[in-house]
Amino acid sequence: MPKENNQTNSSSGSNNGTSNQQRNRTRNGASHSGGYQRSRKRRGGKPKNASAQTPVKVSFLGGLNEIGKNMTLYDYDGDMIIVDCGLAFPEPDMLGVDLVIPDFTYVQRNEEKIRGIFITHGHEDHIGGLAFLLKEIKAPVYGTPLTIGLIKGKLEEHGILNQCDLRVINPGDTVQAGKFNVEAIHVNHSIPDALAFAIHTQAGVIIQSGDLKIDTTPIDGQMIDLARFAELGKEGVLAYLADSTNAEKTGYSQSERTVGESFETLFARAGKRRIIVATFASNIHRVQQIINVAVEQHRKVALSGRSLENVMSIGTELGYLHVPDGVLISIDEIHRYPPEQLLLITTGSQGEPMSALTRMAFSEHRKVKITSNDYVIISANPIPGNEKTVTKVVNELMKHGAEVIYERMYEVHVSGHANQEELKMMLGLIRPKYFIPVHGEQKHLQKHKELAEKMGIPSSNILISDIGRTVEISKNGLKQGGTVPAGRVFVDGYGVGDVGSIVMRDRTRLAEDGLITVVVTMDSETGEVIAGPDIVSRGFVYVREAGDLIEDAKSMAMWAIENCLVNDIRDWSTIKSHIRDEISRLVYERTKRSPMILPIIMEV
Amino acid sequence: MPKENNQTNSSSGSNNGTSNQQRNRTRNGASHSGGYQRSRKRRGGKPKNASAQTPVKVSFLGGLNEIGKNMTLYDYDGDMIIVDCGLAFPEPDMLGVDLVIPDFTYVQRNEEKIRGIFITHGHEDHIGGLAFLLKEIKAPVYGTPLTIGLIKGKLEEHGILNQCDLRVINPGDTVQAGKFNVEAIHVNHSIPDALAFAIHTQAGVIIQSGDLKIDTTPIDGQMIDLARFAELGKEGVLAYLADSTNAEKTGYSQSERTVGESFETLFARAGKRRIIVATFASNIHRVQQIINVAVEQHRKVALSGRSLENVMSIGTELGYLHVPDGVLISIDEIHRYPPEQLLLITTGSQGEPMSALTRMAFSEHRKVKITSNDYVIISANPIPGNEKTVTKVVNELMKHGAEVIYERMYEVHVSGHANQEELKMMLGLIRPKYFIPVHGEQKHLQKHKELAEKMGIPSSNILISDIGRTVEISKNGLKQGGTVPAGRVFVDGYGVGDVGSIVMRDRTRLAEDGLITVVVTMDSETGEVIAGPDIVSRGFVYVREAGDLIEDAKSMAMWAIENCLVNDIRDWSTIKSHIRDEISRLVYERTKRSPMILPIIMEV
Repeated sequence: MPKENNQTNSSSGSNNGTSNQQRNRTRNGASHSGGYQRSRKRRGGKPKNASAQTPVKVSFLGGLNEIGKNMTLYDYDGDMIIVDCGLAFPEPDMLGVDLVIPDFTYVQRNEEKIRGIFITHGHEDHIGGLAFLLKEIKAPVYGTPLTIGLIKGKLEEHGILNQCDLRVINPGDTVQAGKFNVEAIHVNHSIPDALAFAIHTQAGVIIQSGDLKIDTTPIDGQMIDLARFAELGKEGVLAYLADSTNAEKTGYSQSERTVGESFETLFARAGKRRIIVATFASNIHRVQQIINVAVEQHRKVALSGRSLENVMSIGTELGYLHVPDGVLISIDEIHRYPPEQLLLITTGSQGEPMSALTRMAFSEHRKVKITSNDYVIISANPIPGNEKTVTKVVNELMKHGAEVIYERMYEVHVSGHANQEELKMMLGLIRPKYFIPVHGEQKHLQKHKELAEKMGIPSSNILISDIGRTVEISKNGLKQGGTVPAGRVFVDGYGVGDVGSIVMRDRTRLAEDGLITVVVTMDSETGEVIAGPDIVSRGFVYVREAGDLIEDAKSMAMWAIENCLVNDIRDWSTIKSHIRDEISRLVYERTKRSPMILPIIMEV
Repeated sequence: MPKENNQTNSSSGSNNGTSNQQRNRTRNGASHSGGYQRSRKRRGGKPKNASAQTPVKVSFLGGLNEIGKNMTLYDYDGDMIIVDCGLAFPEPDMLGVDLVIPDFTYVQRNEEKIRGIFITHGHEDHIGGLAFLLKEIKAPVYGTPLTIGLIKGKLEEHGILNQCDLRVINPGDTVQAGKFNVEAIHVNHSIPDALAFAIHTQAGVIIQSGDLKIDTTPIDGQMIDLARFAELGKEGVLAYLADSTNAEKTGYSQSERTVGESFETLFARAGKRRIIVATFASNIHRVQQIINVAVEQHRKVALSGRSLENVMSIGTELGYLHVPDGVLISIDEIHRYPPEQLLLITTGSQGEPMSALTRMAFSEHRKVKITSNDYVIISANPIPGNEKTVTKVVNELMKHGAEVIYERMYEVHVSGHANQEELKMMLGLIRPKYFIPVHGEQKHLQKHKELAEKMGIPSSNILISDIGRTVEISKNGLKQGGTVPAGRVFVDGYGVGDVGSIVMRDRTRLAEDGLITVVVTMDSETGEVIAGPDIVSRGFVYVREAGDLIEDAKSMAMWAIENCLVNDIRDWSTIKSHIRDEISRLVYERTKRSPMILPIIMEV
C-alpha cells in the first residue's frame, strides 16, 4: 500500500502509516465535542449510553432522485454524522449557475451535534460541497489519503484550508464519533482509495456503500473487501444503503484492467501517428494504464488540462501513480518529438466547452494542432446530458482528419459502478434486514429495489426515500419519518444561494426573447413628460432592421402615459404597468415574441 | 394501394390513380416554366438538349454535418431542381429560437431556373422549411399522397395553401422537370410512402436515397423497390447520395413488424392496468400496430396530442390507417371504461416539455392522471440531446407508481434508417461510379465512406462535402466545386432571420448573468445631472438582498459621470462607456459575475 508512506502530508498529522495501531486524538474542531478514536480491532465495538430501541434517523440532503450532490445525515440519540458532501452540475435550465450544492439549513441548525463528516471518495459529487459547508460549520473531516489530498486542494482554493480539521483514515480503521463508530471498508471505484462505511450504533449496523463496483483485478491489486462485508452480514446488518447508478445494467461490470488491454491493441494500431487520450482526471488508475502502455511503446507522455495536472501531482506525491523518469514531458516540448513518439493525455472526455480536447478540436488550443497524423481515444462514455457535446468534439476532430475512437466502439472505458449481478452479490453477502437504494434517479432506485426483492428481502423492508425525507431505522422497523429542509442551492460566481426563483425566472425570460427598456423623464409635480420616451432593446431584435416597430412602441408608450394623465392617474407604478401592457401587446401582435418590458420613469 | 383512392384531394387535381398512364399537365407555378410530365415507362428517358460533358452541380443547403434541415439543389445546364426542404430543431445555445431553416439566398437568386421541388417523405427535417421557401419562390412541389397531405396542413397553417402548386406522384412515376427526369422509387422508412429519387440527366443518373431502410416485412407489405435500384445499377449509375444516419450501427436494422410482436407480449403483461403508448405521430405503421393489438385484446383506443390527432386524421382519410368502427374513443370518454379496457396513444416520446406524456408525468394533463394502474410504453429511442428530458419523464411516471417500459428494455422501437449491412447492400446493388454520403454528421459520413471503400469504390470516387459546397459530377470526374450561400436561419415567432449573431450574443449574456440598467437624466446644455442615476436590475441578483451593492453602483455611476464632466467630456457615448466600465468592474469584483450593463442617458 504505497499510500501509507504519504500520509504525513495530512493536516491531521500524526498518522504514521500503521492502520492497526491504536491512536487517540484530542484535537477537535473549535466548536464541537466529537470524540475521535480508532479501535484496535477491524470491527467497531458498540458504543455505550444509547438504547437499542432508539431509532437511527437518516436524512437525505442530496443524491436521491438526482445524480449528484450526495449528502446523508445520520442522527442517533443526539449525535450526528454526515456522509459525503457533494455538488451537482447545473441543468441546462439553471441559467448562469456554476454549481449546485445541497441546502445546509438542517446541518447549520444542528451544528453542535455534528461529530464528523465522513467522505467515501474524492469525486466532485461527494466532496464538491464541502468547502461551502465548512464555511458554515466546524467539524472534522475523515477520508483516505487521496480523498483528503483532493479536498485540501479545494479548501485551499477557497482560502479556508487552515481553519479546517482534516483527518486521514484508512480501510480497516474505525472512528468513534459520538455514539457512532464508523468503520472504513475498502471498495473498488473509478478513483483509488474509495470507501464504504459500516456505521455501528447501539441500534445496529448500517452500511453505506459509497460508490462501488466489484473489480477482481483492480490496478492497485486491492479487491473490494468482500470478506468484511460478508463478516458483517453474518453478524447481522440492520440496514444497507447502496449505490444504484447502474441498477439498470445487467450482468457484471468489467474490470478496469480490460481497458489497459484495449489500449495495448489500439496504441499499436496508431502506428506512426500521435496518440491523444482523453479521460477523467480523477481516474488515476486509467492514467496509470495509459502511461504504462505508452512506456512499453516508447512514447513520451505530455499532459493538457489543469485538473489533470493537479490530480497527477497529488497522485504522484501520495504514491498512487508511478511514472518512470524521463517519460513525462511538458506540452511545450512536444514539437521536439515525432508523432510516433508522443502520447498526450487530456481532459475533455465529456466535451466540456473549455476543456483541452474541445479546444484542440475547435483549433483553439495554443500548443496542439489536430491533423490526420492524430489518433484520438475518448476513454469515457458520455454522462447523460453530454451526448451532444461529445459528438460535436468527435465530429470536429474528424474534420481535421484525425481517427477517433469513441463511445462503445472498443473497450476504452468501464464504469466505476456495480451492475446488477454485483449489486445482488453485495446484497447476498450483507443480507441486511432493511434496504434503502440511494445514489440514483427514481428509475435506478426502483430497479435496485426490484433486485433486492428478487434476493428475498420483503418489499416492506425496502424503502425508496427522497431528499428532504428522514428515514427512521431500528430493530422494530423501518419507516419514512418527517421532513427536513433540503433542496438545491445555486452557486453563481461568489454568490451562494442569492440566485433564487425570481432571478432565474427573469434570466429565462431574457434568454428567450430579450428585453425592451422604456425610459421616460417626467415632472414629478405636473406629470409632464420632459424627455423620452426612449426605447432601448437588447436580445430582442436587431434594431436597425426594426426601426418601425421601435418607433411605434415609442408612440404607444407616449399614448399610454398621456392616457393615464388624462384619466388623472399619477401613480408611477400604475403608469409603468400601463406602458408594459400596451407595449407587450403591440410587440406580441407584430412579432409573436414576449420580451421583458422594463419601464423606467425618472422624476425631475 | 389504398392511397390511390385518396389522391383526388391533391391540389394538383387530375391524378386519377393509374400511375402508368401518360399524363401531361400544363398548369405551372406562376413564375416558372418547368415542364411536367410522367413517362409511360418505369424509367425516365434521357432528356434532350444537354451534353454528357456538362457536369451536374449538386449544392448542399442543409443535411451535411448536421442532423436536420435537409435540402439539396441540383443544377444542370441552366435548370435546377430541389430535393427536400427541411427544418432543424434549435440547439440549446440558440436561445429563444423556435425553428432553424436553411438559408434560401441561393435559391432566391436562381428562382427562374427552379423546375420543381421534390420531397422524399413527410418528416419535419425534409418538409419543415417548405412553407418558408414557398413564401419566397414559386415552384411546383412533388410528393406522394401522404407527403403532400402533410405539407398541405403546414401550408394551410401559414395561410399560403391556395397559392402553392402541390402535385401528387407515386412510386414508379417519372416527372420531367426541365432537363431533369426525376423518377420516384419506393423505399422503407419510419413513415409510409417514402421515396428515393433517380435523377436522370444527359450526364447520367444520380440517385438520392432519401431516408431509407430495408424492411422485408413492412406493415403495408411494400418492401423497398430493390429490383429497381438493381436495374439502375446494371444500366449504370453516375452517383449515389445516401442516408448515413445509422452508418455507425452494425448488422441489419429490424423490421417494423418486430415492434408489433413486442406489443403483443407487453400488452398482455399489462393485465388489468391501463396501457399508455407514446410514439412519433408520423409513424403511422407503428400506430396501426398499436391499434391492431389493442383490438385483439379488447381495448378501446384514445389519442392525446395534437400532432397525433392531426396525422391520424390525414392517415385515415388517405387510407394509410385502418381503424375498426367503435375502437376509437375520445379522451373525454375514458372515465367510462375500466383500465383494462383502455389504451391511450400519446405524443411525447422525446420528453418534449409541452407534450401529452410530459403533462401526464408532471400531473398537468387535464384528462389523464397517472397511477400504479398504468403501464406505460415509450415506443421510441431518445434522439441524441433528448436523453435527459426523456429520463425525467420516466422518473416522474415511476414516482406515480406506473410501470414504464423505456429505451432498449424491450423491442418497442426500431429505427427507420439502414444499418451498415443494408447500406452495403444498397451500394452493392446500385454500384455507383461516385458516392457522396449525406444526411449525417461528420462521424456518420466518414463511417459511410469507409463502408463504400470496403465495397470496392475507390477513395478518389467518394467525396464528403459540406453545406454551402457545390459538387460537380460528370463522367469525367467528381470534384468539390465552388461555394454557395448556406447556413442556418433562425425562426423566432413571426421573425425569420431577424435573430442574428448580435441578438443571440445579447441573449446569451442576459441568460448568464442578467442585466443592470443605469439611467440618468442630464441637462444637454450644462451636462448637469437632473435625475438619477437610477439602477434597475433583472436576472442579476434579488435586489432586496443586494441593497449595498446597488447603492455602491449608483455612487460609482455618479462618480464616473462627474469624472467625465470634470475632464470636459460631454460626449454621451463616451460617458456611457465610462459608466459601463466602472460598474462592470465593481460588480465583477464583488460578485464574480458579468451582467450586461446598459447605461441610458436622457437629455433634457
